[in-house]
Amino acid sequence: MADRNLYLNNGTIEESLDLFASLLGKQQLVREPVLVDVKNSLGLRTAQPVFALANSPLRDCAAMDGIAVISAKTQGAGESRPLELAKGEFEHIDTGDPIYTPFDAVIMAEDIVEGNGGRVIIRAAAAPWQHVRPVGEDIVQGEMILPRGHAIRPFDIGALLSGGISEVLVYPKPTAAIIPTGTELVEIGGKIEEDSIIDSNSWMLAALVEEAGGAATRLPIVADDLESIKKTLLDAAGSHDIVLVSAGTSAGREDYTVRAISEIGQVAVHGVAMKPGKPVILAIVEGKPVIGIPGYPVSAYLAYDTFVAPVLGAMANTTQASAQTVKATLSRKMVSSLKYREYVRVKVGDVNGRLVASPLERGAGAAMSLVRADGFCIIGQESEGLEAGSEVDVLLCRSLEELGSTVVSIGSHDLILDVIADLLPNLYPGNHLSSVHVGSMGGLLALRNNEAHIAPTHLLDEATGAYNVPAIKTMFAGVPMALIKGVGRVQGIMAKAGNPLGITGIESLPDVRFVNRQRGAGTRLLFDFLLKNAGIPTTTINGYGREAATHMALAAAVKGPGADAGIGVLSAANAMGLDFIPVGVEEYDFAIHASDLEKEHVRCFIEVLKHPQFHMQLEALGGYSAGRCGEVEIIG
Amino acid sequence: MADRNLYLNNGTIEESLDLFASLLGKQQLVREPVLVDVKNSLGLRTAQPVFALANSPLRDCAAMDGIAVISAKTQGAGESRPLELAKGEFEHIDTGDPIYTPFDAVIMAEDIVEGNGGRVIIRAAAAPWQHVRPVGEDIVQGEMILPRGHAIRPFDIGALLSGGISEVLVYPKPTAAIIPTGTELVEIGGKIEEDSIIDSNSWMLAALVEEAGGAATRLPIVADDLESIKKTLLDAAGSHDIVLVSAGTSAGREDYTVRAISEIGQVAVHGVAMKPGKPVILAIVEGKPVIGIPGYPVSAYLAYDTFVAPVLGAMANTTQASAQTVKATLSRKMVSSLKYREYVRVKVGDVNGRLVASPLERGAGAAMSLVRADGFCIIGQESEGLEAGSEVDVLLCRSLEELGSTVVSIGSHDLILDVIADLLPNLYPGNHLSSVHVGSMGGLLALRNNEAHIAPTHLLDEATGAYNVPAIKTMFAGVPMALIKGVGRVQGIMAKAGNPLGITGIESLPDVRFVNRQRGAGTRLLFDFLLKNAGIPTTTINGYGREAATHMALAAAVKGPGADAGIGVLSAANAMGLDFIPVGVEEYDFAIHASDLEKEHVRCFIEVLKHPQFHMQLEALGGYSAGRCGEVEIIG
Repeated sequence: MADRNLYLNNGTIEESLDLFASLLGKQQLVREPVLVDVKNSLGLRTAQPVFALANSPLRDCAAMDGIAVISAKTQGAGESRPLELAKGEFEHIDTGDPIYTPFDAVIMAEDIVEGNGGRVIIRAAAAPWQHVRPVGEDIVQGEMILPRGHAIRPFDIGALLSGGISEVLVYPKPTAAIIPTGTELVEIGGKIEEDSIIDSNSWMLAALVEEAGGAATRLPIVADDLESIKKTLLDAAGSHDIVLVSAGTSAGREDYTVRAISEIGQVAVHGVAMKPGKPVILAIVEGKPVIGIPGYPVSAYLAYDTFVAPVLGAMANTTQASAQTVKATLSRKMVSSLKYREYVRVKVGDVNGRLVASPLERGAGAAMSLVRADGFCIIGQESEGLEAGSEVDVLLCRSLEELGSTVVSIGSHDLILDVIADLLPNLYPGNHLSSVHVGSMGGLLALRNNEAHIAPTHLLDEATGAYNVPAIKTMFAGVPMALIKGVGRVQGIMAKAGNPLGITGIESLPDVRFVNRQRGAGTRLLFDFLLKNAGIPTTTINGYGREAATHMALAAAVKGPGADAGIGVLSAANAMGLDFIPVGVEEYDFAIHASDLEKEHVRCFIEVLKHPQFHMQLEALGGYSAGRCGEVEIIG
Repeated sequence: MADRNLYLNNGTIEESLDLFASLLGKQQLVREPVLVDVKNSLGLRTAQPVFALANSPLRDCAAMDGIAVISAKTQGAGESRPLELAKGEFEHIDTGDPIYTPFDAVIMAEDIVEGNGGRVIIRAAAAPWQHVRPVGEDIVQGEMILPRGHAIRPFDIGALLSGGISEVLVYPKPTAAIIPTGTELVEIGGKIEEDSIIDSNSWMLAALVEEAGGAATRLPIVADDLESIKKTLLDAAGSHDIVLVSAGTSAGREDYTVRAISEIGQVAVHGVAMKPGKPVILAIVEGKPVIGIPGYPVSAYLAYDTFVAPVLGAMANTTQASAQTVKATLSRKMVSSLKYREYVRVKVGDVNGRLVASPLERGAGAAMSLVRADGFCIIGQESEGLEAGSEVDVLLCRSLEELGSTVVSIGSHDLILDVIADLLPNLYPGNHLSSVHVGSMGGLLALRNNEAHIAPTHLLDEATGAYNVPAIKTMFAGVPMALIKGVGRVQGIMAKAGNPLGITGIESLPDVRFVNRQRGAGTRLLFDFLLKNAGIPTTTINGYGREAATHMALAAAVKGPGADAGIGVLSAANAMGLDFIPVGVEEYDFAIHASDLEKEHVRCFIEVLKHPQFHMQLEALGGYSAGRCGEVEIIG
């Protein structure tokens, strides 16, 4: 049956969407509208304009507490000419009470004086219709309250009920089935085998569907068995509006899924010119859209946002996508290929009221990179790249409000950044810390490009033995800078628990399998310095070129079967239960533009560094001294 | 027991919140955290930092499909020096498969050639650890995945599961009981008595709580009976985290609620210096916060946003309020009082990339004004007003994205605006029309102040008999303008069905109860013109000063018991089933800055005017001619 499938391979996103749409037929996608109780309609989208069935107020009524009067009979009353109204010439009335003929005005309670025999005295004439809310002042019967295609908000519910509407015709929530496939997948908490992978993508997809206003059902994991996949797919397509097939990450998997789909349905697209996210499948089974989602988390998210979100939108007859897009200024040049549209994860910082997008690592990446990213910068397929300073579109993963109160840290990694990220919003609510780990030099470069507020750094000036200040002076000549003092921290060699190879110091390293830090990391520069002092050539180190991006990642590698030793901080060795051979103490501080010191979130950041709770946690981590922590040193 | 209640009356919002907080005790408000399944944690807020329990990937694994090799044994291979690897020297491997010692690198499938006897031939050496994803590359065991106080997003769920986390400690949804009070309140669909009011506020409040992530229970309507209110309050406070008492709109109601609360609890605040929203009650019953919400919809919304949202936030140990605040430029001067903080409804338009806030009507207002407003501009209590051009804080009721694609119309009212508002997003998805009705002259003034994109107008130049162009030329001398032609429409006198008073034309009006349109409305100017021509003084018209803001509101008044006739368009008379005596045909067009004609949403607006669906609906409304509809006339 494969010849039935005239599919597009590696087309542009637009071509792929067009081909998919023509196969699906847009109008067929739109769900049949349903009548729902207005009280339960929050967030649903109207399928037709809604016209008021009743006036609000229902009749002319008092806008104030006081008396209803016949305005003509009050003429002539004045400050010096009080007028007495007899019973029957007025009526006591409360706000909201109806006004009936012959009354046509209201005098406020504070402007009347009680007279004898139930009479009242007024000292000003009433203008006709004063303090009267006319019938339909708020809502007029027959008036349109909501246009069609409107997502219902809380105050819309209030207005609909006031307008006498009890039920409203809306598009129902689209239902989505999510099928995780892969023999190596296990449920969280399940038994972990040698090649197991914990399934997480299917739950992320379910949450994305729910967040977009759909109803998601995540089905049980399906092993790599053609008949099982086909059966599950057929069942799911029969009972849901859309089916997402989450592929495992092992090879050939997509071919497997595509084969299953093509045997029971039609494949429109297999592979799209986007990066990450290329191995997407767009297909139809039993008349329902089926989308094959790639296995890497970042690819899965982008496939969702690019292909699933528009289909969910079409089901409610709207084109709104799920992610918010903003304009930002690109901080650095980015090169891309004409072969695909590329999505690059970025940090977005509010730098002096201007949104600045700073590219993070590329690649299909992983779950944490989505947690850390603020959004994706899109480089069109027609573009070979973008210059620094270009205006770019950024698909946000985080609210603009949160971005505005986030201290952006780019530079060297240390575990204390996690501690600060946790304490900051807790001690000073509304403020956040977001960290990117690129090493000390990379951080100072980012600071110079205005990509970050602070740059954690631990750079030794070999000539003077001083930390950080010389490097900052060199890189920021003439710019007013400051150093927020951080911690003294112990660096050393991490070895497996019990130190089975008997590592004693730098001199032991040529004999073991080593893991290094990435280029530009201060810890690597320290290691180079130590090797040079000890007269050990880097070429004798087995694993000098094997890089870990953080202290923790390095510690995890040393703990694993593939390595014996690495270099890093005591706290990471402690966290991972490793042995540790100290090689020195260094100063880990935060470089900052002096002009940023007065910013609210920066001041809160400094307060955290001085806070007893922070110092208690340093104590618990081990390997830190915090004598000058939070002091600010101006570098002139 | 009233003497127990040392309450604050008419204090500032801050004083009121402080007093309430000191009575409640902030820490007592925070809900006890609960463990929930990560899969069901979307939108909940973490109560403690979450650290990974597992590495991801769980071990070193292949990043590509191909073969695992020992890098040292591949050295020397080159394009001209193919190297053959024997069985055991390599292993076929798929992406995600584990890499075990002695293997330390992967060669991609496309770079190998199958040899004889299960051997493979390579033509390039492998660098150590190439194409290997090291253990913990994505997530390292012990690393912080989320800080505390973080609202969980879909990709956070993915990262938590990948990090081996199955349950997460979060703050539970706060539960809120909402008690509608008032003998005159009826449920939607219930029997309407003379003084009935359909309860809508309690459902709006329930939806606001749900939208903020709480769980709302709206209790049945409670009549104005002290014991019933007390009993309901006690029950609700016993079983919910917070209780909202929605007062009716009739007088004395708030005193009634405050009395009930003070007899069973403590009142901290009764009345706050804010406008609208003054009659708020902040109290405690059974240790739970109880908030009395004023009856007018706008007051109710502001009381929610100012007092309820922060308490709901505190329950999840966060300070985030519910509404988004943005900076905008004020288009017109606004005067306010030092007596209170004032919230003025505004339209927010994206005018040339700058957010401009234009004040709407003031007052406690009504349900529809919330539907129509884009947000609230806040004038602090310390301020006597704000100058045009000031930067102001605006509390948004609508997303920024939607604001950016909305045609803002300020000017004369006609029913066709509803039709366009409905068709525009339907025919050209993503585009919206938002209308404010201030009459033709008011619209042109708004256009001159850059508050609107278009100004619907029907202004007759008495000297030439021409519509609109002369008025625009006068008001915009030297500015490139255009007129988008709208409809010819029939104006006339509306009378009750069957015309019981036998109204024949303008000459009949001095004998009946009349309803006029507001000052500045083109229809009122037309009426003045007709009266002048007929030699009838305005003072002889009973109701000349009685104003309705729209054609529909006027028609509703004529239909009601308090009036006999009014002036307006045929379509409104038709919609309300009234008799109609035509007095003339006029041109209802749209003034616009010529520079705005090329904007995407404006072009869509013009397309709607030409669209067959629009013309069909005009036909159905009656009283319109559409010969030049959508034509653009440049006014040079």
